[in-house]
Amino acid sequence: MENCYSKHYNSFTYRSHTCGELSSAQVGEYVTICGWVQYLRLSKFLLLRDAYGVLQCTVSEEDIDFSNIPLESVVKVDGKVSLRPKNAINSEMSTGEIEVIIQRLEILSTAENLPFNLRNYQKPKEQLRMQHRYIDLRFPEMQSILRLRSQMLHRMRRFLVEQHGFVEVETPTLFCQTPGGAREFVVPTHHAGLFYSLVQSPQQFKQMLMSGGVDRYFQIARCYRDETTRPDRQPEFTQLDVEMSFTDLGGVLSMIESLLTHTFPKLMQEPPLKKITYKHALEHYGSDKPNVQYGLQFKNIKQLFPEKSRIPHFDAFAVPYPAELGKITAKNKDKIKEIAKKHKVKVILDHDIHKEFGSDFESNLKNIIGQQNSAIISMGDYENACLCLGEIRELIASLLRTRNLLKTEEHTEVLWVVDFPLFTKGEKGLETCHHPFTSPHPDDIHLLDSDPLKVRALAYDLVMNGNEIGGGSVRIHNARLQEKILSMLGMDAEKLRHFLNALRSGCPPHAGIALGIDRLVSIVFNTDSIRDVIAFPKTHEGKDPLSGAPSTISEQDKQYYHIRTC
Amino acid sequence: MENCYSKHYNSFTYRSHTCGELSSAQVGEYVTICGWVQYLRLSKFLLLRDAYGVLQCTVSEEDIDFSNIPLESVVKVDGKVSLRPKNAINSEMSTGEIEVIIQRLEILSTAENLPFNLRNYQKPKEQLRMQHRYIDLRFPEMQSILRLRSQMLHRMRRFLVEQHGFVEVETPTLFCQTPGGAREFVVPTHHAGLFYSLVQSPQQFKQMLMSGGVDRYFQIARCYRDETTRPDRQPEFTQLDVEMSFTDLGGVLSMIESLLTHTFPKLMQEPPLKKITYKHALEHYGSDKPNVQYGLQFKNIKQLFPEKSRIPHFDAFAVPYPAELGKITAKNKDKIKEIAKKHKVKVILDHDIHKEFGSDFESNLKNIIGQQNSAIISMGDYENACLCLGEIRELIASLLRTRNLLKTEEHTEVLWVVDFPLFTKGEKGLETCHHPFTSPHPDDIHLLDSDPLKVRALAYDLVMNGNEIGGGSVRIHNARLQEKILSMLGMDAEKLRHFLNALRSGCPPHAGIALGIDRLVSIVFNTDSIRDVIAFPKTHEGKDPLSGAPSTISEQDKQYYHIRTC
Repeated sequence: MENCYSKHYNSFTYRSHTCGELSSAQVGEYVTICGWVQYLRLSKFLLLRDAYGVLQCTVSEEDIDFSNIPLESVVKVDGKVSLRPKNAINSEMSTGEIEVIIQRLEILSTAENLPFNLRNYQKPKEQLRMQHRYIDLRFPEMQSILRLRSQMLHRMRRFLVEQHGFVEVETPTLFCQTPGGAREFVVPTHHAGLFYSLVQSPQQFKQMLMSGGVDRYFQIARCYRDETTRPDRQPEFTQLDVEMSFTDLGGVLSMIESLLTHTFPKLMQEPPLKKITYKHALEHYGSDKPNVQYGLQFKNIKQLFPEKSRIPHFDAFAVPYPAELGKITAKNKDKIKEIAKKHKVKVILDHDIHKEFGSDFESNLKNIIGQQNSAIISMGDYENACLCLGEIRELIASLLRTRNLLKTEEHTEVLWVVDFPLFTKGEKGLETCHHPFTSPHPDDIHLLDSDPLKVRALAYDLVMNGNEIGGGSVRIHNARLQEKILSMLGMDAEKLRHFLNALRSGCPPHAGIALGIDRLVSIVFNTDSIRDVIAFPKTHEGKDPLSGAPSTISEQDKQYYHIRTC
Repeated sequence: MENCYSKHYNSFTYRSHTCGELSSAQVGEYVTICGWVQYLRLSKFLLLRDAYGVLQCTVSEEDIDFSNIPLESVVKVDGKVSLRPKNAINSEMSTGEIEVIIQRLEILSTAENLPFNLRNYQKPKEQLRMQHRYIDLRFPEMQSILRLRSQMLHRMRRFLVEQHGFVEVETPTLFCQTPGGAREFVVPTHHAGLFYSLVQSPQQFKQMLMSGGVDRYFQIARCYRDETTRPDRQPEFTQLDVEMSFTDLGGVLSMIESLLTHTFPKLMQEPPLKKITYKHALEHYGSDKPNVQYGLQFKNIKQLFPEKSRIPHFDAFAVPYPAELGKITAKNKDKIKEIAKKHKVKVILDHDIHKEFGSDFESNLKNIIGQQNSAIISMGDYENACLCLGEIRELIASLLRTRNLLKTEEHTEVLWVVDFPLFTKGEKGLETCHHPFTSPHPDDIHLLDSDPLKVRALAYDLVMNGNEIGGGSVRIHNARLQEKILSMLGMDAEKLRHFLNALRSGCPPHAGIALGIDRLVSIVFNTDSIRDVIAFPKTHEGKDPLSGAPSTISEQDKQYYHIRTC
């Protein structure tokens, strides 16, 4: 995402240029430069760094001595831009043709006892980086990610506000608890026994905005979930939240496709994006967020098993893979066994197939999977057989990748998964697959009472290289249908009285979506973790190594909020 | 703030036009329109409303009967645009020349039992409006304010990102407690006895970003303060938060002036804005956020009192006002007496001056305040005499305004107040006037030990029509000076260890500001309360009439967070 504006990076400051912008075009000019001391050499050369680049400053006279300035101190240099001697030109630096001859040097801030150096080849451990984030942020990659993130969000806003008339509305984060969904942080108040909850998303608000006539809403919204046990999650995160009235599933998909193409013109395939059904994803990749950058698509091999041998809901799938991978090692065999056990599915590895089922079976299988391929088979209940083989597929892909045998698409693969089921069977009855405000598919409404698990939802997930980066749905805009769904889910409608009233007051049909910004940035800029795209992240346990938060509070505070700890 | 983009308000929807955009240019076209039923007349005319306008739809044939559709139901109309008969043209409606002849009408959502009507002339009480905000938002003023607010923030972002290379960085809201400052909400965690605090501003983070080399930062940030006892405050609010490295007081002032001129080109005076010192504001208006739209400037009349009669720190001021106002009524006299009592200051009303001080005094006073003016005098300790008369000045102004005797500037008056004191004397010792990170004025640093109350701060407030809409300062970037100030304020430096380390690691000089967005929008769009510019506001007690938040939580939740209520 290139920098498309002509900006004044030096307006309102006392520097004349950044460290990155000088070139031979400025030779002869007197400049004022500020930055961090990156490197000192021979008491003569000082490499000055800021967010925009690195610049060589040179002492010409003997009266400026900077040999005692600690690295990472901040200085201000007045000087004259000169061409470097030919043999000193550094073509790897954007400012490598020139240097600034120092006329005046002022130390603005002296660095003391840094916990680590700013050298890429000895990058400190993540814990130490997070503890001293104010230093870690000076690494060029961190600078670059934060700037690209800001650019990306600005491009999204321009698309929505300027091109399509969306209104950014800020909705509250201190609210009441939403039944169902993720665990929400609670916030005690001065009113004894009464708590706010921190919203897990603006879902209720954006739907109430639709009822309120704000027909094209978006927000880059802070959301909160107390789910710190899951890796690569943050207790607070950012989502692009969009909702539209008078639209349908196709409208939202097409809006997001245009948005992504506008935001990442180089990255994206031409819209429309590929759409696959949940059923297709399950039966071919064993996942509702399949990575389709590589093949390894399942084959259904149920027909190879005689009908009488089958259990109820029996199904069988094979994942084919290049035979060059060879025999699965004992260690990986154990991993596969564990996956099979978790899903209560029988799994047969390639070299056991002959022993288990004989030559006829093997040759029939080869006809299906291709003569040059090996395969692993999973057999059992339909859904589990798929999900189990999905995990095995990812393991096989990682083994192939290590051996350089995996054929992968170069470009980012973005697709929609649609036609999810509305409900899933939970321990205590029906549970929602997305959230309780998701509309059933109109063709399946007649099944709500007779066969609810067969009802599809008007829901859609956006999947990028095997990661779910967003999801949404057409919402229920009819209060009676909403009450029915809540009751089927065993949820207390009283807690959503205000919301149901909003549907009852003349609420247009509407649909929307939310994209996880942290994850999206992390995938697009290819970082190891979402923590790398967040200025001040917390650990996966929700701790802040920088400030030590969370921490104890005073007895007075507890009294004020009418709480005791136990 | 006009709408400056050519937008597609109908993209990704199944309507062809909004209710506001049709005119005689579309006559003959077939259109699809969606909206709320605003009004029905003679079973023949249906006024359809959406966020963009109102449109008349007309039945031509007898087979469409909409007489039973409740008002505020949502419908979809397919029809043909026609010119109205000449005698039916309504020049007050933007769509008043045309009507849509209905060919098909679909009810999308039926409104039931609305708690109030959408009629401006019988606008419901605020409590009811907040309780059913999803209906209240349909009033054209609310639609307009939310849209203008979104436009305003977008203009600010464009100025900062596109023209001046600022980076929007999202900083955490779950953090540790900041010593000093407002009361912060606490958030219990699953770790027994450990709490986050909700940040009252991104202050620490933005300063750490400066140390981290993000030299031009901004954020439209959600902030939290548990100060619900103060009227017209919200527990969560939005501020435009900006910070820059390598700048000074003048740099920040000039940046904000450019930003405001860019955002409100019609509203703003030409920069630079007027700058007055805190001392000047106190001595002439009795306030640190003076309303200078009208005159009524104080005159110092200390010289009229013989030296021997004076108490220590004695001072005397008069506020002149047009004699046409006449005698102050008994009720207002009581109000003035109360103000005087609160400030422990002696106040003399105009018609008591002669009785109290005699004719010579009176004629000397007239020479100072102007022969045609009356005056009220306050006498006492310098600061209290000013502050007391400041409150009286506002009362007098309101009395003059009621009688149409107040000469007021038509345009919005925006000015800077500078040269605040760094410290004020609190009950337990020195207290900070802004916050503990504010830099002392370099000319006054030598007074820190000897006469700290005389030290000025490099702080500035932005005042609009008598409201403080923002404030900021040059920050302390030297760890030792910061430690000294914390210690003078009796604050625990250990709680700011991470912050002090950031200053110690090579931190550039920096300065910044925060503008209160809710208040700014409220003043610019002239609403009664900041609640009118917030989509889903809370009452001044921090309650949400819509959802009933805050509310009780379950015993399981309390157990999970290791808290008990008491």
